[in-house]
Amino acid sequence: MKEEKTIESKQIYKGKVVQLRVDTVSLPDGRRKMREIVVHPGAAAIVPLMNEGEEVLLVEQYRKAVERKTLEIPAGTLEEGESPEECAKRELIEETGFQASKLDKLIEYYPSPGFSSEIIHVFKARGLKKVSDAEAELSITFVPLEELLAMIKRGEIKDSKTVIGVLMVAR
Amino acid sequence: MKEEKTIESKQIYKGKVVQLRVDTVSLPDGRRKMREIVVHPGAAAIVPLMNEGEEVLLVEQYRKAVERKTLEIPAGTLEEGESPEECAKRELIEETGFQASKLDKLIEYYPSPGFSSEIIHVFKARGLKKVSDAEAELSITFVPLEELLAMIKRGEIKDSKTVIGVLMVAR
Repeated sequence: MKEEKTIESKQIYKGKVVQLRVDTVSLPDGRRKMREIVVHPGAAAIVPLMNEGEEVLLVEQYRKAVERKTLEIPAGTLEEGESPEECAKRELIEETGFQASKLDKLIEYYPSPGFSSEIIHVFKARGLKKVSDAEAELSITFVPLEELLAMIKRGEIKDSKTVIGVLMVAR
Repeated sequence: MKEEKTIESKQIYKGKVVQLRVDTVSLPDGRRKMREIVVHPGAAAIVPLMNEGEEVLLVEQYRKAVERKTLEIPAGTLEEGESPEECAKRELIEETGFQASKLDKLIEYYPSPGFSSEIIHVFKARGLKKVSDAEAELSITFVPLEELLAMIKRGEIKDSKTVIGVLMVAR
């Protein structure tokens, strides 16, 4: 099983967050296939731990792509030249008003490697201190880690970075 | 925090796997924003458990979107009119040649709810029996569950459905 060689690459769309391109690739056996690829700059997410790690700070927001409110760990898209760690800290402050004194990498993962280049870097954060107000569009909430695990099991949390971040912290 | 009302929806691309549209939405405070949305039919994935649940059957494949080989649980895109369970069974046989006698839902999740409508339904499977040959493009491999957990921790497995499926089975 070898790599797929790009024969042709066609840019379909270049937007604010995502780009879309369609590649024609040649497989190792010589056949050609089309690959629809969403190009994404990557993201950073943070599991903010409070009260000796017993509670997690979450944000609730409306997600147009899935037409529903979701409960998620704070996160955001990498800006140009920004490291995942800088992005995680910036998004934590912007979305919640909290600053973290200690960050540790939990995992980095591909949400949908079948069609999307996006990689999400997930950190856990400790030493949280309120330094400003949260974004008006988001409401923040504190949920015990044990309750979050039960919510994942009951299907009440469906966001990949939140599921992965919480399960990794709980291990 | 209320829903975002669609003012205008513009289809940019309709492909084989994904569609792309750009919505203009009005926020609860009256402001307007653009939302780039990848429309995906959804997918099903399966954690195939062998040897009393001690080993997992995985497939290795090249993923053009991330330009690398990945080790993943078997999975695929929902076909029209197909239930997630039917899709999971079909993809398991197509990708590995194994048929499952017992399927249980582990979770359903949104890989990237910020811009993608995709939902992935994850099952665990038992009672596996070899019934045909696997797809030529994929190589299958059996990995102990404990080793998979170590590989996730070491960053050697980065695919969201595999990380989530393995962590959910291990709980």
